[in-house]
Amino acid sequence: MKFTAKQIAESLQGTVEGNADVWVNNVSKIEEGKPNTLSFLANPKYEEYIYNTKASIVLVNKTFVAQKKIDTTLIRVDDAYQSFAALLEIYNNVMQNKSGIEQPVYIAASSTQGQNIYLGAFAYLGENSVIGNNVKIYPHAYIGDNVTIGDNTTIHAGVKIYSQCVIGSNCTIHAGVVIGADGFGFAPQGEGYKKVPQIGNVIIEDHVEIGANTAIDRATLGSTIIRKGAKLDNLIQIAHNVEIGENTVIAGHSAIAGSSKIGKNVMIGGQAGVIGHLTVADGVKIAGQSGVGQSIDKENEIVQGSPAFSIGDYRKSYVMFRKLPEIEKRLSALEKK
Amino acid sequence: MKFTAKQIAESLQGTVEGNADVWVNNVSKIEEGKPNTLSFLANPKYEEYIYNTKASIVLVNKTFVAQKKIDTTLIRVDDAYQSFAALLEIYNNVMQNKSGIEQPVYIAASSTQGQNIYLGAFAYLGENSVIGNNVKIYPHAYIGDNVTIGDNTTIHAGVKIYSQCVIGSNCTIHAGVVIGADGFGFAPQGEGYKKVPQIGNVIIEDHVEIGANTAIDRATLGSTIIRKGAKLDNLIQIAHNVEIGENTVIAGHSAIAGSSKIGKNVMIGGQAGVIGHLTVADGVKIAGQSGVGQSIDKENEIVQGSPAFSIGDYRKSYVMFRKLPEIEKRLSALEKK
Amino acid sequence: MKFTAKQIAESLQGTVEGNADVWVNNVSKIEEGKPNTLSFLANPKYEEYIYNTKASIVLVNKTFVAQKKIDTTLIRVDDAYQSFAALLEIYNNVMQNKSGIEQPVYIAASSTQGQNIYLGAFAYLGENSVIGNNVKIYPHAYIGDNVTIGDNTTIHAGVKIYSQCVIGSNCTIHAGVVIGADGFGFAPQGEGYKKVPQIGNVIIEDHVEIGANTAIDRATLGSTIIRKGAKLDNLIQIAHNVEIGENTVIAGHSAIAGSSKIGKNVMIGGQAGVIGHLTVADGVKIAGQSGVGQSIDKENEIVQGSPAFSIGDYRKSYVMFRKLPEIEKRLSALEKK
Repeated sequence: MKFTAKQIAESLQGTVEGNADVWVNNVSKIEEGKPNTLSFLANPKYEEYIYNTKASIVLVNKTFVAQKKIDTTLIRVDDAYQSFAALLEIYNNVMQNKSGIEQPVYIAASSTQGQNIYLGAFAYLGENSVIGNNVKIYPHAYIGDNVTIGDNTTIHAGVKIYSQCVIGSNCTIHAGVVIGADGFGFAPQGEGYKKVPQIGNVIIEDHVEIGANTAIDRATLGSTIIRKGAKLDNLIQIAHNVEIGENTVIAGHSAIAGSSKIGKNVMIGGQAGVIGHLTVADGVKIAGQSGVGQSIDKENEIVQGSPAFSIGDYRKSYVMFRKLPEIEKRLSALEKK
Repeated sequence: MKFTAKQIAESLQGTVEGNADVWVNNVSKIEEGKPNTLSFLANPKYEEYIYNTKASIVLVNKTFVAQKKIDTTLIRVDDAYQSFAALLEIYNNVMQNKSGIEQPVYIAASSTQGQNIYLGAFAYLGENSVIGNNVKIYPHAYIGDNVTIGDNTTIHAGVKIYSQCVIGSNCTIHAGVVIGADGFGFAPQGEGYKKVPQIGNVIIEDHVEIGANTAIDRATLGSTIIRKGAKLDNLIQIAHNVEIGENTVIAGHSAIAGSSKIGKNVMIGGQAGVIGHLTVADGVKIAGQSGVGQSIDKENEIVQGSPAFSIGDYRKSYVMFRKLPEIEKRLSALEKK
Repeated sequence: MKFTAKQIAESLQGTVEGNADVWVNNVSKIEEGKPNTLSFLANPKYEEYIYNTKASIVLVNKTFVAQKKIDTTLIRVDDAYQSFAALLEIYNNVMQNKSGIEQPVYIAASSTQGQNIYLGAFAYLGENSVIGNNVKIYPHAYIGDNVTIGDNTTIHAGVKIYSQCVIGSNCTIHAGVVIGADGFGFAPQGEGYKKVPQIGNVIIEDHVEIGANTAIDRATLGSTIIRKGAKLDNLIQIAHNVEIGENTVIAGHSAIAGSSKIGKNVMIGGQAGVIGHLTVADGVKIAGQSGVGQSIDKENEIVQGSPAFSIGDYRKSYVMFRKLPEIEKRLSALEKK
């Protein structure tokens, strides 16, 4: 898709300076501008780039005063950053505006679908599955029996959702995510193990985003729950019967072991772990690569280490850890006296 | 499916107290009981919940004596927990009782299949693949050329098994698992690397369970082997030519590097790593987030740390690590004297 | 496929000693040799095995002098290891010599394909996708709209490539890899978060190999780039706007956070992490399980720890960490004096 400077200026209620007929079909950063891309200048720190950017159109604030000659076409708007962000969102929606049902797909006779859905080729809808309005299900997605998916949710290519799970509305589930596989429950029996049946499910509430190849196990009994607004990055492991609180954010490769309850507005860094059956209070922050070995009851506490403790104390200890050879030498020197 | 209290009591050889016609279609924990669910009371600690649970039926021991009025229907059995577990297993088997061949599927002409299999839509069976009796292969699973799958094994949605691999009987392989991708083998050549061909395979023995999105690489030559009864959680990396011993249990996000041999009955915590070409003795336990940097020859040893050493020593050192700033102050005080 | 000793000797310009008609259909290590397999003896350390190996044919150097009677058929060549490696490569190419288009597949009308491609059943080619010559796309792979794939690249089963991404030539992308999912970008808004549109793409240059279930996110704006010759293992997370330099090698479970730039010829151990917005110089080595918390400007630096610092210093500190309880006792003893 191409847009001219004139079209863009109209949609943003801005004014064009330069060639109003120049067109763009992509966006760029001003310091990496290429022909036929649109860029923006908001932060004065980047002003130097506008004088020789190759971007064909640059959004600038109405108040911008050029210090040198500018070759590119400008569009003046009230707030260049806001206008650019608004354009990105429009562009993104247009790019992802899939609809209709490709062939072949597998739709069980008892599945029901809302209006205006997209169903990519090779998608699978199991028995009694209920698909809301405006849902997008990309190719190779597997929606098991009795699964419910709320309105406006996007299920990307190859997502696998086991039977009985419930996905809220306005969620985005990225490619390769597995929801509802069996929890890791085995009871010792003789020399080996006997599997504990995992007959619960997973409930994902509204406005949740889940990154590529993350795995969320079903509960042994009851539900593993991801609360409203939570954001999970790629390759995360959420074990059976875990609960992740509202608006909690978890970075890539983290793992929450069985039955732990993570509060609201918690932030968990990458590659961090929380062992099973713990409680983590609202607003807690866990540094990357930390291992939480006991419940954190104090709200907004910040921890680091494996096992994790207060981040300030961890850092002080780590400074000393780095000096340990020197400390030992000082000790030896004293001993010799 | 609905079951009445009368039907359940008959199957458990129990006796009904209350409305024998009330029905349930799911199970619940007694403290979270909902209408039309079945629950149980075994641990006296939870007795308080039975007096106002909303579960429609509760299994109790024959010896249970109520202290107050109970509204829900009771079924008295010899052992409430055992009976509940038995029902769960029946329920689980019924839920997963898929059979038949959905359409479309891809079955190479030279593939052979046993009796009573389930083949979900979009499943792929490569040339000369051999599928045992009672095998369930869910949608989007890929079974490469010359792969063998033993009786009673379940391959969940989207599992990818490369050519030449061998899967035992009574295994469960969860969604997104990749078995038999190339080992990570590259030889330096000029400024870059030349790939070492990876022409071995993966052998999974009987009664193995593998969690969602785990990846097990094929051997360079010979086989990567997961022995009988081993249980692997989600998102685990097993590199080329590794051998995992019988009944060994590995938690999520762990990684075993190339050619390492892990013994029997080993337990590996989450996010732990073992470097390449090591041996880990039978019965060893490796704490979560630990990094094993040398072979562990002593059976039943327990280790922690990165690099890992004896867990008792690690914990003593870690206590001192937390006190390091104070220790340094004590040292400074002495120096001043 | 079967090959006789005579056929193999001819292709290697070697000479047969023993039964020239014996055939093999696989390869083995000499110490694990089985009937109808081919093995080799290059390292004198393994000589003992040749006298009772069950391998039907063994490649040996022309200069090899047997100390005892040998039952197996020998093929004498100039360099047994080189010849064996050459055969492996031929074998590997034969095994993977898929071609043609299986059915059903989904090919958008505007997609274009080069010559001699393989397209497995249930593969998906989106609108305007461009597939080069000799490309192999295995079953269940998803190639999104406007994706380009260079000549001789292999896309294994179930790979998911989001729209707009560019894959170079001579690449190997293993099963379950996700390329181009949204970067993890959310701006705080009220009590929750608002998604930042992720409209960039991923560019994979030539001769790159990517391991099973690895996830590489698209850029917010611009491109996430994996440079020529880089090798990524399984289950790796590459966040938005990251750049991985030429011939850099990354082991399993590592994670590179948003916008970090990793230099050329860097080696990153397993389960290591690099936080966002850093620069790592060419030739740097990062030990497994390390966490890089600040830019590394010095080329060829080797680091360890979480946070990471010079590996020599880390190891000295860690030795002292193990002795900490003893150090504290020495300090106490001094204090008592």
